Amino acid sequence: MPAAYDALARQQTQLYRLGHLSAICNWDQAANMPPKGNDARSAAMAELAQLMHQLSTDPKVDTLMQQALQESLNDDESANLREIHHQWRRQKALPECLVTQKEIASGRCEHAWRSQRPANDWAGFLENFRPVVALAREEAERLSQALGVSRYEALVDGFEPGLTEAEIESVFSPLRQWLPGLIAKVIEKQSSEPVTQPQGPFPLEAQRALCERVMHLLGFDFTAGRLDVSTHPFCGGVPEDVRLTTRFNAQEFLGSLYGTIHETGHGRYQQNLPAAWLGQPMAQARSMAFHESQSLFFEMQLGAHPGFVAQLSPLLIEAFGPQEAFEPENLQRLLTRVKRGYIRVDSDEVTYPAHILLRTKLERALIAGEIEAEDLPSLWDAELEALLGLRCDGQHHQGVMQDIHWPAGLFGYFPCYTLGAMYAAQWFATIEKARPTVHAEIERGQLEPTFDWLKTNIWQQGSRWTGAELAHRASGETLNPQYFKSHLNRRYYG
Amino acid sequence: MPAAYDALARQQTQLYRLGHLSAICNWDQAANMPPKGNDARSAAMAELAQLMHQLSTDPKVDTLMQQALQESLNDDESANLREIHHQWRRQKALPECLVTQKEIASGRCEHAWRSQRPANDWAGFLENFRPVVALAREEAERLSQALGVSRYEALVDGFEPGLTEAEIESVFSPLRQWLPGLIAKVIEKQSSEPVTQPQGPFPLEAQRALCERVMHLLGFDFTAGRLDVSTHPFCGGVPEDVRLTTRFNAQEFLGSLYGTIHETGHGRYQQNLPAAWLGQPMAQARSMAFHESQSLFFEMQLGAHPGFVAQLSPLLIEAFGPQEAFEPENLQRLLTRVKRGYIRVDSDEVTYPAHILLRTKLERALIAGEIEAEDLPSLWDAELEALLGLRCDGQHHQGVMQDIHWPAGLFGYFPCYTLGAMYAAQWFATIEKARPTVHAEIERGQLEPTFDWLKTNIWQQGSRWTGAELAHRASGETLNPQYFKSHLNRRYYG
Repeated sequence: MPAAYDALARQQTQLYRLGHLSAICNWDQAANMPPKGNDARSAAMAELAQLMHQLSTDPKVDTLMQQALQESLNDDESANLREIHHQWRRQKALPECLVTQKEIASGRCEHAWRSQRPANDWAGFLENFRPVVALAREEAERLSQALGVSRYEALVDGFEPGLTEAEIESVFSPLRQWLPGLIAKVIEKQSSEPVTQPQGPFPLEAQRALCERVMHLLGFDFTAGRLDVSTHPFCGGVPEDVRLTTRFNAQEFLGSLYGTIHETGHGRYQQNLPAAWLGQPMAQARSMAFHESQSLFFEMQLGAHPGFVAQLSPLLIEAFGPQEAFEPENLQRLLTRVKRGYIRVDSDEVTYPAHILLRTKLERALIAGEIEAEDLPSLWDAELEALLGLRCDGQHHQGVMQDIHWPAGLFGYFPCYTLGAMYAAQWFATIEKARPTVHAEIERGQLEPTFDWLKTNIWQQGSRWTGAELAHRASGETLNPQYFKSHLNRRYYG
Repeated sequence: MPAAYDALARQQTQLYRLGHLSAICNWDQAANMPPKGNDARSAAMAELAQLMHQLSTDPKVDTLMQQALQESLNDDESANLREIHHQWRRQKALPECLVTQKEIASGRCEHAWRSQRPANDWAGFLENFRPVVALAREEAERLSQALGVSRYEALVDGFEPGLTEAEIESVFSPLRQWLPGLIAKVIEKQSSEPVTQPQGPFPLEAQRALCERVMHLLGFDFTAGRLDVSTHPFCGGVPEDVRLTTRFNAQEFLGSLYGTIHETGHGRYQQNLPAAWLGQPMAQARSMAFHESQSLFFEMQLGAHPGFVAQLSPLLIEAFGPQEAFEPENLQRLLTRVKRGYIRVDSDEVTYPAHILLRTKLERALIAGEIEAEDLPSLWDAELEALLGLRCDGQHHQGVMQDIHWPAGLFGYFPCYTLGAMYAAQWFATIEKARPTVHAEIERGQLEPTFDWLKTNIWQQGSRWTGAELAHRASGETLNPQYFKSHLNRRYYG
């Protein structure tokens, strides 16, 4: 009997259960909570977070951890202990006062940012942002010491365990070479392909029904989850009860529908994690790049596949009445239109990685201490110009102030979006290699075989393997960005 | 500086914050949660409950409590310490294993009851119910020893601190004398007063809009609360964010509307507890009888007041179109119709107390060990016959199995309903004495002066005073059931 391991596993179950309450209340805060509930909610969430941090960094855990690492464990237990150990090392490296200070500073910065962004108030933003950067650097420094990796790697490791700067560089450097050229070619090609815009209004109830219908088609289990509305769509809740959110705009429905399809990818990953292990880190989703690979698989690989788009067309007519814009070919053009723009979340599949290259480069330098917060706008413009031929010229609200990540103290997340897009292309290519009939299946609305592959190879694996092992077991190789390049070339310049 | 008191108060704040998460998740479980989320939710809620019990019964608290009781405190602090001490004595009296055992037994009994009730399966129910009774008796015995009161008083004290069996007897015994006679007289009188039933269907969206409109009229603050739907309506959430629920039936809207008015009374009490003290027991609602006095004030004293009913009439026409049944006089008759029935929650203002007399008598004897669970059906029928002239004769689903309280292990709550109805009549009589214009005000839709009285005298007092003190300060006397008797006589036999 591995007694120490068992004690650690019991503690993980306890933390998982407490985390459940936090996840549901977090969703509630975004989807339901009236404004006057906010202060009490924030205080309650902070109280639980502190309690959970105390439980996980209790000195008793040190002893158990040393003992457990000597115990004889089976493969599942070993994998689980690897994950417990990884999380514990990170938590242990950060003193509680730093965690609290960072929460307060980023809470204040994010809150002010919500009004400073529309006011384009860079000077005001900078005042709150500098302490966020200082604390993120301190966090990175402490984690770097504890884990023996670079500062930026130490932050990235919180989202993508073990990913190195060299690996990011080896993937992003070639991308940087070929992407601007592809963007130019695609825009040139599309300039001679006319597209018809759908004509609103699109009643919100019809949009909601359409979204739920498509979620059903995509296999979302409504007996273990819901769809609601929030200002910023996300996939929240717990694996046993997944809470997706979207937002509706009466004049435009594709954004909401494809946002929902994206979140459904996250949701199905959560709903299909290994049930027997729920409560243990081994049952968690592998990493944020793997998570984004599922949402982008749903949204882009599948959602913008011509066979799927053809399935969608009659559903749109049913929801909103017939329109020329709902013809499959036109829909496909709408969904794959490439346009250089300032805003990451509004960008298309081809220009999106340019936004990620820019942010990754700047946040790496910022955390490394090579640049300061006040340097960001000019560096932003230099990068934006190089990659997309655009400049913000002081319109910070559509530049450095556009994303919530940095004001919220999240550094090291951005690369996951594009790594996720690359993994998604790799999964699709693997499926296609094994079953060339996949295109015909999608055209017939036969999506189960594709979902079965994801379920067996990704979802049900949880965190049993490292990211590299998981990719290799699923597709026969570790991350290979070539699949993403081929996918973009085939879809946009085929 | 009262250091020990301060430490206790800080712990109360911590418990309050953790309780916030529990309250929101509890509401979510009833209003939102899909079925497959239930097991994980129950485990998460139990984990937090256990943690909170551990925190409050930590041996360190014993020392702090002894010290705090010697410290020099101001009046507010003294009142707060009285409440902290009261709760702590109760928690301390119960070993954690008993709390857990009782939760498991009542969880199992309540769960099975949900299908056993419709199946009228008394024998099956009894199997799960016997252990619930045994554990409730053990709980009562331990609390009785710790508090120096009778077993039944020890359970009642959890809802109505300090209430004695002698006090219950002194109020319920006269009620038992005059109630059956009044019921008979009223039914006889009403038999010659025809009433027109509203004709459905009543669209659910119109019902919801009507309920929200009426909640606005009643002063509910929607920036600090919501109305949602659940199978069993309740007032949940936290004082800063009150979550009311109702349920809709397309064929009948008065039940839902008056259920909502009832919950709005609870809700306004919660929303108007003393804000500066929130987080401390002194800021909590005084007791369940006081809570029910607010919901019943809203539902019965105000909601069935002819002046309020006249205000309602045009709102019903606006919501559902004109009907004869919506004439104020007919509405008033609908709302005050008296009928002997089996089901407590469907009963009217006059027969309701008969249901409470019955349950109070039986549960007191059951906890005292004077009767056993298997004796309940025959005793139920004897009481029901004496009070309402009805017998269940084996139809347990509309007899002993009808309420959730006993299967859920809640003994000692029932008296609060009727004590609440009595307090509500006492508050209205006090208002009427001070301001005889109150009837004219209600007819004009001027409800603020009445709410102001409740706010100043009840809501904002929280738990600063004992129940008896609070009643005395508000109305010049402790509970006086004469007001309830006069109210019923005036309204139903005036």
